[in-house]
Amino acid sequence: MNSGVKVFAPASVANVACGFDILGFAIDKPGDEIIARFNNSISGLQISKITGAKGKLPYAIEKNTAGVAAQSLLEHIGEAERGIEIEIHKKMPFGSGLGSSAASAAAAVMAINELLRRPLSKRELLPFAVIGEQCADGSYHADNVAPSLLGGIQLIRHNPSLDVHRLPVPKGLYASVVYPHVQILTKDARDVLSDVVTLEQCIQQTGNIAALVVALYNGDLDLLQRALEDVIVEPQRSKLIPHFAEVKDAALNQGALGCSISGAGPSIFALSQNSLVAENVGIAMQNIFQAAKIESQLFISPINQEGTILC
Amino acid sequence: MNSGVKVFAPASVANVACGFDILGFAIDKPGDEIIARFNNSISGLQISKITGAKGKLPYAIEKNTAGVAAQSLLEHIGEAERGIEIEIHKKMPFGSGLGSSAASAAAAVMAINELLRRPLSKRELLPFAVIGEQCADGSYHADNVAPSLLGGIQLIRHNPSLDVHRLPVPKGLYASVVYPHVQILTKDARDVLSDVVTLEQCIQQTGNIAALVVALYNGDLDLLQRALEDVIVEPQRSKLIPHFAEVKDAALNQGALGCSISGAGPSIFALSQNSLVAENVGIAMQNIFQAAKIESQLFISPINQEGTILC
Repeated sequence: MNSGVKVFAPASVANVACGFDILGFAIDKPGDEIIARFNNSISGLQISKITGAKGKLPYAIEKNTAGVAAQSLLEHIGEAERGIEIEIHKKMPFGSGLGSSAASAAAAVMAINELLRRPLSKRELLPFAVIGEQCADGSYHADNVAPSLLGGIQLIRHNPSLDVHRLPVPKGLYASVVYPHVQILTKDARDVLSDVVTLEQCIQQTGNIAALVVALYNGDLDLLQRALEDVIVEPQRSKLIPHFAEVKDAALNQGALGCSISGAGPSIFALSQNSLVAENVGIAMQNIFQAAKIESQLFISPINQEGTILC
Repeated sequence: MNSGVKVFAPASVANVACGFDILGFAIDKPGDEIIARFNNSISGLQISKITGAKGKLPYAIEKNTAGVAAQSLLEHIGEAERGIEIEIHKKMPFGSGLGSSAASAAAAVMAINELLRRPLSKRELLPFAVIGEQCADGSYHADNVAPSLLGGIQLIRHNPSLDVHRLPVPKGLYASVVYPHVQILTKDARDVLSDVVTLEQCIQQTGNIAALVVALYNGDLDLLQRALEDVIVEPQRSKLIPHFAEVKDAALNQGALGCSISGAGPSIFALSQNSLVAENVGIAMQNIFQAAKIESQLFISPINQEGTILC
């Protein structure tokens, strides 16, 4: 009778080489599903069910990424007293560098908004999803949430004001993302990063990110290839990912335009000019982990353009 | 009988706020003129005349920016023995932050190329002009030379390989450039710059430069305004320019989209949405120097699209 609404929010690749903390893109899968429905026998928001989380996600609204995101939206639109229950179906791994918590936050706000017949536009949902993500990792930033919610390649000029811009995607651009089943603690990923960079590195990074935007606008894949280089974070964080250098070499040898760490890792992404190359690139990347007896998952996907969708 | 060719190379604004070392644009004036003509009574290149330089420019080819640029081009095309004389008419100030040596280098290669009936395309002249500029300031970089030679707003992804890209210019965009008659030694401008920046500053700078490129492609002046911010170099170098903060305030109060140091200073540029605003902005900037009894020159100009031209 009251089947509610079901939405899907895709995984996302943040940082994207020279775009540390300011760039992210969505891929078609994996992703999270959230179902929201009215429940007149309760008052306020409740999480009624969580699957796929191996007991790692709390049911308490204020401690759950999706819960915090949904609650902040409900308060904003004056519906905090409404009896609503949500089911969270995690269909992607935690701590993978694929924006798992961002996907939950994006799915939560979209589900609530759809259930309430769209009081806000999708773009207007962004701040609430970011608040949810903040609950998971402590910082207010949109480089996973924006692509997960809105799709495409998203540039975040300035996180505090959510000055977010969708960038054009060259035709055919495909991502290969490999998630090796090794654990990187967020704390380690942060601790390994120096607080300072040289002015020279900063100049290179600005040159590359500016050129990357040019490449996307012009559909210039040669330039994209030259620009997809991270001289700052990758050299530091890649040490935490076993066999990173070999995986990157394998990707580039198969014709990838670029290859770097997805989010804070351990996932590694590559971009290629079409699906065929992306497939070969992905297999070559995965083969390195296989040879090292490290289990991994491979996702091959175009840049997802829709972001979170009703399903 | 042998009147030769005469070319004009415009001044340029390098760095452009968040584009330190990677961005520059040309303005219509001031600029340098160079005349090149065959002289069968000499062998090789000679500088026959220099005006406007107050005796500060050497006649020795290998010590003169224009000479070095012209000579490197002549050697490349196998015309180093040809009897050619050039006249250099400096029509812009040295050490102003307006790309004076870059204009001489750009003019020199263009004049030689025209005299020899264009063995190379204009774009192909760039490396030789950069070699000339290098003679003046010791480093191989194109952020003044590229706009001075080619016009427009030029992004240099990577200086060593001259990976240079012309960016779109939003309709109506106008520059106001004020050159206060104070001296900044290049050495001081360098010494004042720290070799390191914080990771946070680098993230802000990459966000701003990426957004600046988006703003130029989309003609989004609101975004351009938010992106035209330099959190790294301006705070350090502006101390060398008397009354910088007041001049910047005056520009922004008059509606400038942004205001920062031109090159290494002491010139200060502002960008505005049209010529009317640019005029008011420029006058307000100049008034600050006038009140402080510092002489200054004001240049109001659209973004110059032609670069170096035959005249």
